[in-house]
Amino acid sequence: MNNNFYCVIMAGGVGSRFWPVSRNTMPKQFLDILGIGKSFIQLTYDRFLKIVPEKNIYVVTSSAYSDLVHKHLPNLPVENILTEPYRRNTAPCIAYAATRIRHMNPDATMVVAPSDHFISNENLFVDTISCAMRYASQKDELFTLGIDPTRPETGYGYIQCSMKESTTVDGNIAYKVKTFTEKPNRELAQVFVDSGEFLWNSGIFVWNASTICKALEKWLPEVYSLFKDGDKYYGTPQEQAFITKIYEDCPAISIDYGVMEKTSRAWVFQASFGWTDLGTWESLYLHADKDSDRNLIKCHDTLIDTTRDSVIVSMEKDKLIVVKGLENYLVINTDDVLMICPRDESKFKEVITDLAVNEKSKYM
Amino acid sequence: MNNNFYCVIMAGGVGSRFWPVSRNTMPKQFLDILGIGKSFIQLTYDRFLKIVPEKNIYVVTSSAYSDLVHKHLPNLPVENILTEPYRRNTAPCIAYAATRIRHMNPDATMVVAPSDHFISNENLFVDTISCAMRYASQKDELFTLGIDPTRPETGYGYIQCSMKESTTVDGNIAYKVKTFTEKPNRELAQVFVDSGEFLWNSGIFVWNASTICKALEKWLPEVYSLFKDGDKYYGTPQEQAFITKIYEDCPAISIDYGVMEKTSRAWVFQASFGWTDLGTWESLYLHADKDSDRNLIKCHDTLIDTTRDSVIVSMEKDKLIVVKGLENYLVINTDDVLMICPRDESKFKEVITDLAVNEKSKYM
Repeated sequence: MNNNFYCVIMAGGVGSRFWPVSRNTMPKQFLDILGIGKSFIQLTYDRFLKIVPEKNIYVVTSSAYSDLVHKHLPNLPVENILTEPYRRNTAPCIAYAATRIRHMNPDATMVVAPSDHFISNENLFVDTISCAMRYASQKDELFTLGIDPTRPETGYGYIQCSMKESTTVDGNIAYKVKTFTEKPNRELAQVFVDSGEFLWNSGIFVWNASTICKALEKWLPEVYSLFKDGDKYYGTPQEQAFITKIYEDCPAISIDYGVMEKTSRAWVFQASFGWTDLGTWESLYLHADKDSDRNLIKCHDTLIDTTRDSVIVSMEKDKLIVVKGLENYLVINTDDVLMICPRDESKFKEVITDLAVNEKSKYM
Repeated sequence: MNNNFYCVIMAGGVGSRFWPVSRNTMPKQFLDILGIGKSFIQLTYDRFLKIVPEKNIYVVTSSAYSDLVHKHLPNLPVENILTEPYRRNTAPCIAYAATRIRHMNPDATMVVAPSDHFISNENLFVDTISCAMRYASQKDELFTLGIDPTRPETGYGYIQCSMKESTTVDGNIAYKVKTFTEKPNRELAQVFVDSGEFLWNSGIFVWNASTICKALEKWLPEVYSLFKDGDKYYGTPQEQAFITKIYEDCPAISIDYGVMEKTSRAWVFQASFGWTDLGTWESLYLHADKDSDRNLIKCHDTLIDTTRDSVIVSMEKDKLIVVKGLENYLVINTDDVLMICPRDESKFKEVITDLAVNEKSKYM
């Protein structure tokens, strides 16, 4: 394995989208929402163990979650957990990780990935990322992973490929990026998929630490300037105090908006390793195996009748869940919350808003 | 208080009708379903303390519930708990209690009442029952309590009064009974109420122990003959063995069907003390106070929105109940069962049947 290859797992997300299973104190990346015995962050870590040396895996998270990261990834050295004192979106997170890794190894090539995505074909994932890293290590370009769209999904961003500028690398194709597009409406999503020019934006990036640092310096100088003094503090007892100080002043901005949409150096590796960002109950419902009445049921013991197109999840063991006559509902039961809500995402969002408004935030 | 006055509280009912709050091991009479701090049996006992001497209150229950009776009524002497080894409906229960009390006191007048009814005007209840007992003590007749109907209820039995034969006793009116009618359909119930001749059958009886014994001997000799040897065993260590032996052979039959519908000695005291047999979630829903969306809500903490005409009960403390977009549902949550079911009584009955069929009877 190449000692210049590094991985950065972004694990700072807060989790109201799988509420009440996910909480502020227990966001999605620490959940085993699929019931397969490992949390999302554990699955993500395990995948990257096959791509980069164990000591080169870093996790960036909120200071509130550093203990949870340590608990879920006990083999990860604590010095590889980079903690952010404030939430500032992905650009500062990547600026911290990139300057920190460049400080350790100026020749580093890094893959940056969210901690809470689901990958169904792990071998293909390893092959594609490894290929992209080998290629990126020789280029002064910024690479992202684009997923072959299988449906006109309105919950993802899209990347338009320049069909005239592409290159084949060990059987994988990388295209020059033409545009980045935010979540489209249904009609536009269908046009994107039909065109054959668009890929889903996975939020996984591959680049040299030095290349992304240069790009940050050019496109986000107000962010980069804060981190450029990091070399004086990284690896010293003053690192955390330095980070705390600069994060306070750091603007919150995404790497997509701040860099990728502006640079002319963006490329996208086409990938088809079965990627899903299970960001909501609805996306979990659409992705997961369902019973003959199209229900997604994860419970210890059930008696379910004349109930269709619903999500029924109970985290309480030794509890019988009896449901009769529901259609298109979420029934989510945890130790301290029972939520019954239409499956419609806008209704679920109303619940989350109502929790705050009605002073129930202790349950969030 | 008259030392010849006795009370028999019938507390043998099993409870699937408030499932999952009521259980085989915890039937309705031991529940505080109204959330007022006392179980039905405690409320019933407290009412009769104002009518008969404490030592003259007896409870007849299943052997499975005698410990529960003792727990709920710690002041009740254990020898006043009469335990039935098998469920045989009300006639054997009354035969046991009546022969037992006659054995203690041949001049006894007794009131017999279910343990799980709700009375809203306790003072009027005490006055009416006391009046009926005083009157019955001088008569060789069988008295029942009939409630002024306030709606065409189809869940109760009705008693038709003979308007030509009545007597006024201390302001109360007793009518000779013309007919007993089982639960009518809606149209018939409306006819009953409109006629002014019908009262709800409360299942509360007042009579001398000797009078009901004579009536049992006449109308149910196959039951009475089993108990007539009781005098040899009552109050001895052999009492329970005797009861166990005769109950095995005893037919199951109600006192209404076995005696009251046949005798010409039945009279009914008209009563209006606010009586409700809260026998089902539906009757509790109809009886209880509701919020402005017509929901009956008994929970520790809730966030309820766009939900109407529903019953939402949670026995778990420290649990937030979030319900959105339900109409006409039961949501009942206990430590080990969550039930979501349409309020329609037939749907609820299907759940109870399905529990048995699907081998979930450990939750019953």
